[in-house]
Amino acid sequence: MRFLHTADWHIGKTLNNFSLLEDQQAMFKQIEQVAKENKVDAIVVAGDLYDRSIPNEAAVKTLNKMLQELNLCDHFPLLAISGNHDSATRLSTGQDWFAYQSFYLNTSLAGAFNPLTIKDTQFFLLPFFGIQEVRNYFDDDSIKNVNDAMKKITTEMTKYFAPNKTHVLVAHFFAAGSKRTADSETLVEVGGLSAVATDTLAPFDYVALGHLHNRRALNNEKIKYSGSPMKFSVSEAKQEKGVWIVDTAPFSVKWVPLKPVHDIHLLKGNFAELIADASNYPNEDFYDIELTNKERIPDVLNKLREYYPRIVSLHRTHQAQQAQFNFDKKRVQESPLDLLAEFYSQTMGSEMTSEQRAWAEKALTEVMKGEN
Amino acid sequence: MRFLHTADWHIGKTLNNFSLLEDQQAMFKQIEQVAKENKVDAIVVAGDLYDRSIPNEAAVKTLNKMLQELNLCDHFPLLAISGNHDSATRLSTGQDWFAYQSFYLNTSLAGAFNPLTIKDTQFFLLPFFGIQEVRNYFDDDSIKNVNDAMKKITTEMTKYFAPNKTHVLVAHFFAAGSKRTADSETLVEVGGLSAVATDTLAPFDYVALGHLHNRRALNNEKIKYSGSPMKFSVSEAKQEKGVWIVDTAPFSVKWVPLKPVHDIHLLKGNFAELIADASNYPNEDFYDIELTNKERIPDVLNKLREYYPRIVSLHRTHQAQQAQFNFDKKRVQESPLDLLAEFYSQTMGSEMTSEQRAWAEKALTEVMKGEN
Repeated sequence: MRFLHTADWHIGKTLNNFSLLEDQQAMFKQIEQVAKENKVDAIVVAGDLYDRSIPNEAAVKTLNKMLQELNLCDHFPLLAISGNHDSATRLSTGQDWFAYQSFYLNTSLAGAFNPLTIKDTQFFLLPFFGIQEVRNYFDDDSIKNVNDAMKKITTEMTKYFAPNKTHVLVAHFFAAGSKRTADSETLVEVGGLSAVATDTLAPFDYVALGHLHNRRALNNEKIKYSGSPMKFSVSEAKQEKGVWIVDTAPFSVKWVPLKPVHDIHLLKGNFAELIADASNYPNEDFYDIELTNKERIPDVLNKLREYYPRIVSLHRTHQAQQAQFNFDKKRVQESPLDLLAEFYSQTMGSEMTSEQRAWAEKALTEVMKGEN
Repeated sequence: MRFLHTADWHIGKTLNNFSLLEDQQAMFKQIEQVAKENKVDAIVVAGDLYDRSIPNEAAVKTLNKMLQELNLCDHFPLLAISGNHDSATRLSTGQDWFAYQSFYLNTSLAGAFNPLTIKDTQFFLLPFFGIQEVRNYFDDDSIKNVNDAMKKITTEMTKYFAPNKTHVLVAHFFAAGSKRTADSETLVEVGGLSAVATDTLAPFDYVALGHLHNRRALNNEKIKYSGSPMKFSVSEAKQEKGVWIVDTAPFSVKWVPLKPVHDIHLLKGNFAELIADASNYPNEDFYDIELTNKERIPDVLNKLREYYPRIVSLHRTHQAQQAQFNFDKKRVQESPLDLLAEFYSQTMGSEMTSEQRAWAEKALTEVMKGEN
């Protein structure tokens, strides 16, 4: 059989307050297109369908429509699990009805031992889990970490292995040896207690993982992250996004890149250069900008946004020295004009001109009047 | 055909911070039993399945299980709409899959004009709606109130009437002539602009309403509130709760009462009487108590809760006069002891004794020390 492996849709996610819903819809249409062109027998979504446990109504409407389109309109069997960003309970709404239409959504540990068979393949759907949940399930307090937990889980799963079938695990966790690289992933303790050793996953012919957003986070032929289908943070700016097309017999894996609708660009330059270059960049894309000017430019973010409306972060190569004021009793006795002059010189690296000083004095006098 | 008419389940509702989930589950089991015993062909739930637009996870789990049991286990066709307490979007999750199993959930105005036929009956499922929504739908700004809106809606619905069928409307609104009696209903403007005249509903053979919690709120043979299946506020304490069993041919309506698991009692008496009577009342029931003692009894609520653990409200027949303090500059200059003495006399209706005064003075002195 042939299936499409994707994960980490994070429907409803924002990028520094910019909604990504339209981009997510466009990304979805590409995934749907890839599934159709490759005539897949099923689509696997390995967790984090939503970005949060209580997504807003627009996100709910959007994901409902996507799943409805893939499953009820296009008639793709769907295999999905809840990730750490999803509420297992909320996401599970409707799952008993979904199953009648070959949409298999599992959000419980117990459900992971009820494999789904499609053509030559058994799929084991393991949602994101907590260690205590696994201890309770097996009534085994000797489970100390997530790898112990996964050993128990995989051993249990192998009992349900049908011979002569391909065995695929769909899961959402941090696999040992993989690199966490992006800000938009949930913070996980790298290595050690919080990681599953890839050896533990050896019984499976393929492991379709979700959690990390970079498909290159793990370098393993049969254990793969699909990564997120689009860039969700500046730290993902240089990652190529896409989906895996997996064939079971003979086994083969093909990477199909997806084209970002609005890319994230990392720009570096001085103010004049950035403005001069602006016409080379799509207006609606996202920008992370490193500003190289030494001098302070008032209201620089808003000025740059006239050229790059969707700046998601702005850094300075030469961070202006932070003014250090000690507001002790002595300083309070200094005149506001002297304090301002000192602040100016510290921040700008030069003294106020006599014109600036005169202007400041006038402004301060006006302000003082207002106080009485 | 025969169907069961219920509404206003409000899953997740609390009664003064006491969870009602267990009571709601028991109430559900009774409804299920009534449906089985009466061999109904469908179950109608006329809105407010949840108590709030974002129900908590326990409520989500509970309602999901109830619907799953009625529809997928017992194989009852379900007909449901969203009420004003539900989020139409959130509640709609899964609805396209539900329909394959004869669970017809409608949460949109457009869907109201797509009747469902079960045996001899066409059901029109009209969710709770806003007037602007109706104006937009019909592109008609002449709609001034909810009755205008309903006239448009029913006229449109009659276009889809199949001859020789019984026509049933399922809706969630305030019908003119009905009485709002309970605190747990959402505040509606009674009569006038916010009510639907019963004349407007004349085209239907039966109207299964939700919204008001008292089935006696409206006295009409063919337009009925089922009321909530259990008491949700003290103001509903004296209402009999239940469901309607409706037969279409020949038309007949039968009331089937449900037995409350934990009833709400209205008690009145002095402290000694209330305590003496406590053994006559179930410990886990809910109580609204009117205390007739004239004198103040310190910590009276907690004392009564030793006998009636689930008091949801406590009133006094002789409410102690509310102390009126004017914290103007003059009063601030009075001594704390004088202020306390005045507060005591106003609240208790008598002066402090010399012992009380001495104790208060000592306590105040201690407090003052701490200030420096």
